[in-house]
Amino acid sequence: MGKNAIVGQSGGPTAVINSSLAGVFQTAKSCGAQTVYGMRFGVKGLLDEQYVDLSETLRDQLDIEVLKRTPSSYLGSCRYKLPDPAKEPETFERLFAILKKLDIGYFFYIGGNDSMDTIAKLSDYAASVGSDIRFIGVPKTIDNDLTGTDHTPGYGSAAKYIGTVMKELTRDSLVYGMRNVTVVEIMGRNAGWLTGAAALAKAEDCEGADMICLPETIFDLERFMARVEELQREKPATVIAVSEGVRLADGRYVCELAENLGNEDDFGHRILTGTGRFLANEISRRLGIKARGIELSTLQRCSSHVTSRVDITEAYRAGGAAVTAAYEGRTGQMVGFHRLSDHPYQCTTELSDIHSIANYEKKVPAEWITPDGFGVTEGFLSYARPLIQAELTPIYVDGLPRHIYIK
Amino acid sequence: MGKNAIVGQSGGPTAVINSSLAGVFQTAKSCGAQTVYGMRFGVKGLLDEQYVDLSETLRDQLDIEVLKRTPSSYLGSCRYKLPDPAKEPETFERLFAILKKLDIGYFFYIGGNDSMDTIAKLSDYAASVGSDIRFIGVPKTIDNDLTGTDHTPGYGSAAKYIGTVMKELTRDSLVYGMRNVTVVEIMGRNAGWLTGAAALAKAEDCEGADMICLPETIFDLERFMARVEELQREKPATVIAVSEGVRLADGRYVCELAENLGNEDDFGHRILTGTGRFLANEISRRLGIKARGIELSTLQRCSSHVTSRVDITEAYRAGGAAVTAAYEGRTGQMVGFHRLSDHPYQCTTELSDIHSIANYEKKVPAEWITPDGFGVTEGFLSYARPLIQAELTPIYVDGLPRHIYIK
Repeated sequence: MGKNAIVGQSGGPTAVINSSLAGVFQTAKSCGAQTVYGMRFGVKGLLDEQYVDLSETLRDQLDIEVLKRTPSSYLGSCRYKLPDPAKEPETFERLFAILKKLDIGYFFYIGGNDSMDTIAKLSDYAASVGSDIRFIGVPKTIDNDLTGTDHTPGYGSAAKYIGTVMKELTRDSLVYGMRNVTVVEIMGRNAGWLTGAAALAKAEDCEGADMICLPETIFDLERFMARVEELQREKPATVIAVSEGVRLADGRYVCELAENLGNEDDFGHRILTGTGRFLANEISRRLGIKARGIELSTLQRCSSHVTSRVDITEAYRAGGAAVTAAYEGRTGQMVGFHRLSDHPYQCTTELSDIHSIANYEKKVPAEWITPDGFGVTEGFLSYARPLIQAELTPIYVDGLPRHIYIK
Repeated sequence: MGKNAIVGQSGGPTAVINSSLAGVFQTAKSCGAQTVYGMRFGVKGLLDEQYVDLSETLRDQLDIEVLKRTPSSYLGSCRYKLPDPAKEPETFERLFAILKKLDIGYFFYIGGNDSMDTIAKLSDYAASVGSDIRFIGVPKTIDNDLTGTDHTPGYGSAAKYIGTVMKELTRDSLVYGMRNVTVVEIMGRNAGWLTGAAALAKAEDCEGADMICLPETIFDLERFMARVEELQREKPATVIAVSEGVRLADGRYVCELAENLGNEDDFGHRILTGTGRFLANEISRRLGIKARGIELSTLQRCSSHVTSRVDITEAYRAGGAAVTAAYEGRTGQMVGFHRLSDHPYQCTTELSDIHSIANYEKKVPAEWITPDGFGVTEGFLSYARPLIQAELTPIYVDGLPRHIYIK
């Protein structure tokens, strides 16, 4: 009889992370896994022996379809970094004892950068103790900042959401025919992939964003103000997309100019917020123009009512490819996407050594940022546009999208 | 030959205000209007002779379908209150001269409270000078605070948007299985209709909002904190919906505790913002719990990618009923909805004297607020739920919803 499989979700959620879970679950079942366990709240929950038998919670194909449309992580998530196995071997001993008890042969972890560090440590530890459990990572992050893959599942849907609301906010900004500036603050601490997606709004039916400020470009407040003033002469309703992570030449975040922020998340990342509001206030104060700051906030990562079908399908496919790889004997690897062409869009999955991925960040390349630092190029758009195509219609029950959760 | 018609949009936009415009345009054409003009930027634009011939900008049925799905006001809007005709008759003389030049027999104005004041003044002035132009108001506001109608077009879609994102944010809040509080700030200065819509999120697939704070209830910060602390003991992930307009017993807005706000809009309404952020900061500071403030902001009024089909259909119907009424000889009235039953939902249109509507605000009745002031009753839900039913799918082109605008 085949060994069992276990799957976990880690890090910040996306609108499509559960589609990868569906891909792992269904493919593992069809590969012959007896039981597919889901760890609750990632490896942190697993260390407390929190897990479910997914066949018991996902009972039929309708559950799977609703799962794909449910935002956030169905299994729960954690922001937990495994310790150095040389220094704290007991954590690893405990984890492997639990995996042995559950007769696990295949371990899948859906997550971003920090989650791939988990796969690297676990597969290294397995090799060091002669365990034959296979560990494969499934990429996930709205930030699109993972190396080893053309793009990450979750990015396309967040980009589609951002493009959609930028179009709507642009229409809204023009309603009074009056001078005004809208500053939309978008997620992405160090990489401008999401902020750049604001450029997708420009089309024959939309004027699009007038300025796009990525964290890859040093933010100069004086140049920014001068550009806003210039734009106001051409176009009374100015719409600006700005990353939460834009920094000044001295390394400080722009939002630090606004208020004292001491908050850090469990990975020691500072929580950034207030950039858009600060810039809107500065515009009002200095230029005397009505300005509003809009923070897209958590909605960017959980808006499963507007997802990209390309993204949802690829998320499922990444989960399936991880299982196939594990059953073929691979371990210590991450599934990635390799793009063959933009027009038509063609993409295959491939595997990369997990050590080449964990803890690296992929940024928007300099050649995709316009020379003035206030926009993205056609190259960026050709890259991003295929990822937002087509829709997966929510299943509405009594007027609202239906979700599924573990009671 | 029949006289011409003119239609304008005024006040804050909604996701469905253009559906009412479509209803006016198409019904006026079928009633025999030679030309249907659209005033740009409401009466304020009309005073500058800004208008379009709608047959030239809306060329076919596809344009109409896209129009229904376009957020913000297609014609542009204004926040402009007509002066007292006794004091400044020249404004009225000027307007009526323009209407005469365009051979207008029928005047329609789509808007909220302040717009109905415009219809009242214009129809009164017409009577005083013996003009036979007919003036009819078409209700519109996400705030649902107009009297003379069971509900207003625009409310159902905003309520559906709020219900949808509250479900998504609730799922997101549970992802780490950790103690945290989410405070969602919702529009509605004096009336809690939109904030109450957060209660729609509660269903068999969603825990829903744990506290709902309407502007109709005096906000007591100490009672609020005590309730949050109590909830935290029962339910680590607490989700709170709070109106931007909640006030303390002394009449100050809660957001005034946060920062100095001097901004007012053109109607002298103070711009409110920061309530959610302030409360989240207070929760963090006093209770030591991770708390985030999320402001739904402008997205509530322009999210045409998720609209209620009931609402869109009724918005169209309200526009059509206004035209029919004008052609039947009515003037100085507003179209409203009269609900016959909740289950099944049945609603007819009716007309009310505009003077009984303009400048009055309809609030959530006390019997629909729970005794503790932190929720709404089943009565509220029975009222709101029919209004969010069914969807009007966006028309997606190249991955994003298609809009139409006047170039």
